[in-house]
Order: sequence, then structure tokens, then C-alpha cells
Amino acid sequence: MEMKLASIGVVLALIALAGYREARSQVHKTCDGFDLVDKSGNIRKPVGYRDHYQILGTFTVLDAIPMASGSERGAEIHYTYASPGTAEYYRKTGQFPDGAVLVKEVFGSDHGPLTTGDAHWASGTKQWFVMIKDAKGRFPQNPLWSDGWGWALFKPDSPDKQIATGFAKDCQGCHIPASSTDWVYVQGYPVLSSK
Amino acid sequence: MEMKLASIGVVLALIALAGYREARSQVHKTCDGFDLVDKSGNIRKPVGYRDHYQILGTFTVLDAIPMASGSERGAEIHYTYASPGTAEYYRKTGQFPDGAVLVKEVFGSDHGPLTTGDAHWASGTKQWFVMIKDAKGRFPQNPLWSDGWGWALFKPDSPDKQIATGFAKDCQGCHIPASSTDWVYVQGYPVLSSK
Repeated sequence: MEMKLASIGVVLALIALAGYREARSQVHKTCDGFDLVDKSGNIRKPVGYRDHYQILGTFTVLDAIPMASGSERGAEIHYTYASPGTAEYYRKTGQFPDGAVLVKEVFGSDHGPLTTGDAHWASGTKQWFVMIKDAKGRFPQNPLWSDGWGWALFKPDSPDKQIATGFAKDCQGCHIPASSTDWVYVQGYPVLSSK
Repeated sequence: MEMKLASIGVVLALIALAGYREARSQVHKTCDGFDLVDKSGNIRKPVGYRDHYQILGTFTVLDAIPMASGSERGAEIHYTYASPGTAEYYRKTGQFPDGAVLVKEVFGSDHGPLTTGDAHWASGTKQWFVMIKDAKGRFPQNPLWSDGWGWALFKPDSPDKQIATGFAKDCQGCHIPASSTDWVYVQGYPVLSSK
């Protein structure tokens, strides 16, 4: 009888600990960008980033050069989200952690005279860029893994289909001015310097 | 001996469960804005909102009317953060939950010709507005609690000191155009309509 009680107690303890550890691992798991990458280096867009990632900052681009051919010039608003823990790590080390995921969601915009002035705000997703930090050079044969990151592009007509073919062709041109800050436009992201 | 083992097992189970429940309650506790309010309705600015709250969206205001007297007109970028769970609740119900906290951080801006066009980004906090949803009319005598919200204002020279004196005087004027959407400029916040 007593041995049964002891066994029940130990089993309860193990079940409770397992539940606790699972809850913790779910929190930590969201930081691991390589959950989004298959063995060949193909990148998936993370699900639920608007709810579960952290904003780094936004850029409002007036008279933006359209990325889709045939589009007219107009204002775009770029929101950059990072996987949980990325900003905290960057503030401590000045670097993006291996596995960090950045999502840049490019919106069109609306604007109007609101009470504080001529206001511009996001309206309608045009495309998403995804970058995953790779400090280990995991995919040397894949043209979308270069210079310490994996690079990806998705468009709304097929939002789960990665369509970039190579870093040099699809990504490098726009990011070259930021190459000295690990290819990221960190000047627009206040949370990378202070909480 | 066996009874001791049973007791140890049960104690272990209770400790593990307590740890698990504490971890869960820390997650949920961050949603309760009334932790930031004293018995008279005085509002504190939340700590760590850039890391722990969720972005709703940003407004870029060109040629903004300066809120600080003596300032020159210039572009401002407004970031609005919400306490965890606020956006999910709003998507399901079309309402802000009781206790929801909104922080609008008003930045100055820098700008320059980046690769995509004439880009504007946040630089230097000018002030913070805080709103806390109050569905119960908790502070009928306090002039900063009105129309379903508590209202607060903080400035960088004394960032923890709430300095608004009344909703009608300090808040209502700028928010009137949004009165039909519970006083919030929801059109600029994509996550309120889809994940």
C-alpha cells in the first residue's frame, strides 16, 4: 500500500515536471529559426509573427520604388518583426543570435490629415522578406544563404511560396548600404539600443 | 520508510505544480492594466513595453504639429503597443478587453534616401501616451478616466511622472475623430483585423 502511494507520488511529480518543462520549451522554441528551414536550406515564413514576434521598428518610404513590376510609385510602410529574444540578445552583445528570424512586412499605405498632421499608415501587405541568422555557414551550396543569413521572399498571391532565387540577384542590392551592420538597417530600430 | 517515500513524492509533485502555475500566471499577469493603477486612478507607465507588449501599428506624421510648445514642426513617428492578448481579443470580439493597456510612443524622426526611396524612421522619444481600458467606470470622480478609458501622458524629462490633468483638456481634442471606434485610430493597426 505504502509503496503504491510512493509510486503515485513520484509519477505525479514527473507528470507535473514534464508539463512545466514543456511550457518553458514552447517559449524558447519560438526563438529557433531553424525550425523554419528544411535540410536543403529552404525557408518557410513563420506563422503568427504579428502576435508572437516583437517589432524592431518601421520605415516609411515616400515615393517608394515599387518592387512589383508594373506597380506605380507610392508610399510604403515596412514593419520589421524579430523572433522573441532577438532584441534582448542584440542589446547585450551587439549581434544577432544564431537562429534569429527577422520578418519585414512591406505594406502599401493610406494617408490623410489627422489631428496631428499629414498621417501615413499601413494598408495591404505587398510582400514579406524573411532573414534567418546563420552564424555557422550551414548551407554553403545554397545561393539564398550568404553573408551570415538565409534570405527569403514571399508575395501575397502565394504567401507560403518562397520565390527568391539567390541573395546576389534578389537581396544584396537593397541591403548593401547596411552591410557594415550585419546587413540590417539597425538605425531604424529603437529597441536594439534600449528597452 | 515507504510513507516517507510517499510524502517525498507528493511534496515533489506539489513543488513542480507550483512552479508550473507560477510560470503560467506570469504570462497572464502582463495583460492586467490595473496593476498599473492606484486606488485613486493614478496611472503608471508600464516597464518593458518594447519587449513585452505587441505592436499594433505606427503612424508617420509629416509636418507634425509639435506637442511640446516652442518646438518646430517636423515629422513624427507614433508607435502604438498593446498589452499581450489585446489584439487577439479585439479580433474575436471587435472590442478592447477590460484592463487592456495601449502605449503610444511618439518619436521624432530621421530620414534619408535609402535604396527603396525617401525613408523616414524613428529617432528619439518625445513623449508617451498611455490608455487603460475601463469597461466598468471605476473612477467616476477622476477627470483622467472618461469614455471607457483611463488616459495618461509622460515626457522624457521626467519619464515616470504622469502630467495630464484631464481627459477633456489634454486628450479629447486629438482623439475625437476616433470616437466611433472607441477613441482608437484602429485603421492604422493591421493586427486588429488579421494575424
